[in-house]
Amino acid sequence: MNTKTDIAENICRLCEVVREKCPLVHCITNYVTVNDVANVILAVGASPIMADDINEAADIASIASALVLNMGTLNSRTVESMIAAGKAANAADIPVVFDPVGAGASGLRNSTAARIMENVKVSVLRGNLSEMSFMAGLEVSTKGVDSSDKDKNNDPEKVAVSAAEKFGCVAAITGAVDCISDGKRIVRIENGSAMLRLVTGTGCMTTGIIGGFAGAAEDMLTAACAGISAMGIAGEIAYERAGQSGTGSYRVAVIDALSRLDPAIISERIKIYER
Amino acid sequence: MNTKTDIAENICRLCEVVREKCPLVHCITNYVTVNDVANVILAVGASPIMADDINEAADIASIASALVLNMGTLNSRTVESMIAAGKAANAADIPVVFDPVGAGASGLRNSTAARIMENVKVSVLRGNLSEMSFMAGLEVSTKGVDSSDKDKNNDPEKVAVSAAEKFGCVAAITGAVDCISDGKRIVRIENGSAMLRLVTGTGCMTTGIIGGFAGAAEDMLTAACAGISAMGIAGEIAYERAGQSGTGSYRVAVIDALSRLDPAIISERIKIYER
Amino acid sequence: MNTKTDIAENICRLCEVVREKCPLVHCITNYVTVNDVANVILAVGASPIMADDINEAADIASIASALVLNMGTLNSRTVESMIAAGKAANAADIPVVFDPVGAGASGLRNSTAARIMENVKVSVLRGNLSEMSFMAGLEVSTKGVDSSDKDKNNDPEKVAVSAAEKFGCVAAITGAVDCISDGKRIVRIENGSAMLRLVTGTGCMTTGIIGGFAGAAEDMLTAACAGISAMGIAGEIAYERAGQSGTGSYRVAVIDALSRLDPAIISERIKIYER
Repeated sequence: MNTKTDIAENICRLCEVVREKCPLVHCITNYVTVNDVANVILAVGASPIMADDINEAADIASIASALVLNMGTLNSRTVESMIAAGKAANAADIPVVFDPVGAGASGLRNSTAARIMENVKVSVLRGNLSEMSFMAGLEVSTKGVDSSDKDKNNDPEKVAVSAAEKFGCVAAITGAVDCISDGKRIVRIENGSAMLRLVTGTGCMTTGIIGGFAGAAEDMLTAACAGISAMGIAGEIAYERAGQSGTGSYRVAVIDALSRLDPAIISERIKIYER
Repeated sequence: MNTKTDIAENICRLCEVVREKCPLVHCITNYVTVNDVANVILAVGASPIMADDINEAADIASIASALVLNMGTLNSRTVESMIAAGKAANAADIPVVFDPVGAGASGLRNSTAARIMENVKVSVLRGNLSEMSFMAGLEVSTKGVDSSDKDKNNDPEKVAVSAAEKFGCVAAITGAVDCISDGKRIVRIENGSAMLRLVTGTGCMTTGIIGGFAGAAEDMLTAACAGISAMGIAGEIAYERAGQSGTGSYRVAVIDALSRLDPAIISERIKIYER
Repeated sequence: MNTKTDIAENICRLCEVVREKCPLVHCITNYVTVNDVANVILAVGASPIMADDINEAADIASIASALVLNMGTLNSRTVESMIAAGKAANAADIPVVFDPVGAGASGLRNSTAARIMENVKVSVLRGNLSEMSFMAGLEVSTKGVDSSDKDKNNDPEKVAVSAAEKFGCVAAITGAVDCISDGKRIVRIENGSAMLRLVTGTGCMTTGIIGGFAGAAEDMLTAACAGISAMGIAGEIAYERAGQSGTGSYRVAVIDALSRLDPAIISERIKIYER
């Protein structure tokens, strides 16, 4: 039933296209992981710009090739900027990638996530199983910004399809197994390393990379799968090189691997299946 | 007079307990060192969440196992969040660890530190000798966020005891020699490396780690000593591995060492004395 | 025509003086690269303090030896702090180093850069060719925060001289070739590595280091050249050591090299020319 999909080939091609086009990726993201997000966007060949003031958010979005919204350290000032930038991105017809960090964990996060989805047409929604279950409208038990064990009863494939259908976007759930859907197609990616969870912001970085690929792609399912498989493969390579050294070296090795990623490496390592 | 205390044993045990419990640590901290703080909290086995908006600070604190407040890049918006989160933490009976960065260096920092101590019951107060001398009500000559040479005339043991008595908390002074007191007991830790001062945020990281241990501990003196000795030992190991390479590699090696810390390493290296 | 200038000797001396004096450098900078900026300031021997609240910006500036302003993640709150700190720095007669990140890219950035130059006497203005062309009043085509290819038609020497004359300060343009002028003298520095552009914030770091040197220097042209050549040389050394590993290791190696920089290394590697 599960067969390696031709998405793999499209990802390899996109990996080259993003380095040629060097799309500008406007990020309104959190201050915890923003530096790593900028560095991984550069590592895959795109160009990051972080700008969150309401007086320039729309201007910057309109010159960018993709917009990334991340509510990791949500605050009332930047929520308005996210919405203004999102509307400008929609008007300019550039993709919006949204990471609803901690959705389900506080009233503010829940209402903000809802406001963004109501006001902005999102192209790719990426989160962990708890966050995406919440977004899809299912019962959740979020503990902070990490996925809750209790939510393991939710089937990632069903959650991805539900969220995709609900919002008319590509929905991507990352975790032990990654599951991506546009509502019709369902893709699973089995790359990655458990060590990725021991570095803060690997989820945010994945979202940032998806933004980079989205800025150079025509198909958003491919962009989402490219970003997620790139991070998974980089996580594996980094584990082989630095897993024994500790989490500090591992994080450096993840960025190293992303910066050296090419079609040959992806083609050899990618474990992607569609059904 | 000085004998290795049984705190060493308790620290070894706590080092394992924190990895089993994986306590959620809510941090309202500065944007300079926040990424390193998150990564060291993960490295010792706890789970960080950074949330500083007034509309969710109390919500997040009430689901956490410990709260860390750090006034490194103080601003009027987050001060209110710190107090709201602190009160919620007190109500939920979870420990609050406070790092009064730069206390003594500006009127804003001085008044904010005072406001926090008046409104929030703090479990552990950690700072350098200048900051802690100021907090204890002694004469100080702070130069920025680093300890002033002039304050070397203050005896760290006396400062720690004074601050502990004044606030009814565990007071921890870190520097060439670390001194921790709950007002009755006085503990000295002699681990560490001079190179730690050449990396920004090693103080903030120590406070973050104390938060991780506090979230899994019953005794706050043990939690403070665990966090401080962990950072000291990691600083020594990092110096042996990367001291000659430079401060960039050294910082990575500190995080590596924290992520690989276990009771055997602590037991072998810890230099802790009580009198 | 081009001869190695005696600025090289002055830079070597300044490299030692900054480690002796350990000047306090007050930075109001962006949250993307702030941690790296703090770490490189420490690496060259100065002491960073980040403080951006309007209620302490002037207080902190007045105890510092240099002030660094960087508008990378501009927001309405910190713009007022930048101006207040700038005025306090002018009153205390300490140098102000300004990095007009993204000038030309949005109305907010353009008007803020103009406001700062009108209200604050800047000692060193550093940017890429697009930003500095905009500051000098020339036609530009900025794309985000990176220099635009279209602006390559502007001659860096002319832009540096124009900006220096317009503002009566040292103007420094960094890029493939660095060009620094105080309006009379023109200096070119040919150190560096193309890989520096693949790490976010190497421009901000250069500005931060200039702040460190400015806090210990008498002559601002020397301070600017010291900061720029230090980063260029560190970029070369890092490329030799970690260029093949990837951009994560490269970034660590840049900070390593800065922390180990000494007059012998500078003297051997510096490529600086005056005409």
